[in-house]
Amino acid sequence: MNKGNLFIISGPSGSGKDTVLQKVFSLCPNIKFSISVITRDMRPGETPDGKYRFISREKFEEMIANGELLEHNVFVGNYYGTPKKYVEEQLESGFDCIVEVDVNGAAQIKEKMPDAVSIFICPPSFEVLKSRLSNRGTDSAEAVNKRLEASIGEIKRAKEFDYVVVNDNLEDAVDGFISVIKSQHLKTKNNTSAIDSIVNK
Amino acid sequence: MNKGNLFIISGPSGSGKDTVLQKVFSLCPNIKFSISVITRDMRPGETPDGKYRFISREKFEEMIANGELLEHNVFVGNYYGTPKKYVEEQLESGFDCIVEVDVNGAAQIKEKMPDAVSIFICPPSFEVLKSRLSNRGTDSAEAVNKRLEASIGEIKRAKEFDYVVVNDNLEDAVDGFISVIKSQHLKTKNNTSAIDSIVNK
Repeated sequence: MNKGNLFIISGPSGSGKDTVLQKVFSLCPNIKFSISVITRDMRPGETPDGKYRFISREKFEEMIANGELLEHNVFVGNYYGTPKKYVEEQLESGFDCIVEVDVNGAAQIKEKMPDAVSIFICPPSFEVLKSRLSNRGTDSAEAVNKRLEASIGEIKRAKEFDYVVVNDNLEDAVDGFISVIKSQHLKTKNNTSAIDSIVNK
Repeated sequence: MNKGNLFIISGPSGSGKDTVLQKVFSLCPNIKFSISVITRDMRPGETPDGKYRFISREKFEEMIANGELLEHNVFVGNYYGTPKKYVEEQLESGFDCIVEVDVNGAAQIKEKMPDAVSIFICPPSFEVLKSRLSNRGTDSAEAVNKRLEASIGEIKRAKEFDYVVVNDNLEDAVDGFISVIKSQHLKTKNNTSAIDSIVNK
């Protein structure tokens, strides 16, 4: 059995990344979504066995010190990170695994796991990005501009990624995303069993 | 407009390569198939403007000397080659282009155009390969064995290719092949226009 592939996904607010990922997971039920460890409190509706695992700050710092995290980050005073063990277990079991992180997290993972394939989900244009960020309706112009600046800051680093999926039309974006996943399985290094079985006959 | 991508396709007798390619071309009408120059005589049913361009041995040797061929080969006393100009014109016009060659031709092209993406079409097993080569029905056991040896010789070099598409089930092979083509368009170096339009706003 071949090992699975690791896909690192980033995309700014307004890229529609969550919708793309949701659709990809519904079409590819065998792909695993990595878990995150986090030091903030559990919120209503969250469960201890969901995407986030709630741990203490001490435990988190111990994981950093022991090299148990593929990447970590501080956001509004809390630590967020991706445990290496869960990802490695999925890959060893032959499952593809998707890690969703920001551009800094993506760079950290790529350094530790250079075989990982990174995909940046990008809005199609400045106008669409601005419209998506404004249409949430609940925020002030100042809040919208702040998010717009943050998104553009991420897009400035999009060229660090292996692939860019432009999310103009959802169906095309999902189709393109899945073609990247499929093509990884056809990379020669991941697909030698037929060759070996014939050559070693 | 982005330049097109060049795909180098090889696959031994018994891989079902021609059937896969036929289906890919019918599903992707915008992909161009490269032309070949050849020094043998035109056969009944062939036309001067088809896949093969029939030229004199002198003209062929002149093309070699002028570096006008991406690859060339001798087969049963005749020269076969792939003119560079036609391929480059398609790529510059934004079309993907497929060149179908043997493993030696593939290596020659990859050396001259390292950005080309090479795909090897492989039978799923020794048994299927042997059965496909035997089922032509018209050949002696000796002729079948000779083709089998030649096919295995090519499969021994499959690991030089970027991708391997195993042709067990035609539909899956075509789907995989097309995912490789699609994913190339999402490689960051081929897909920067949305990023640039937002960042340079």
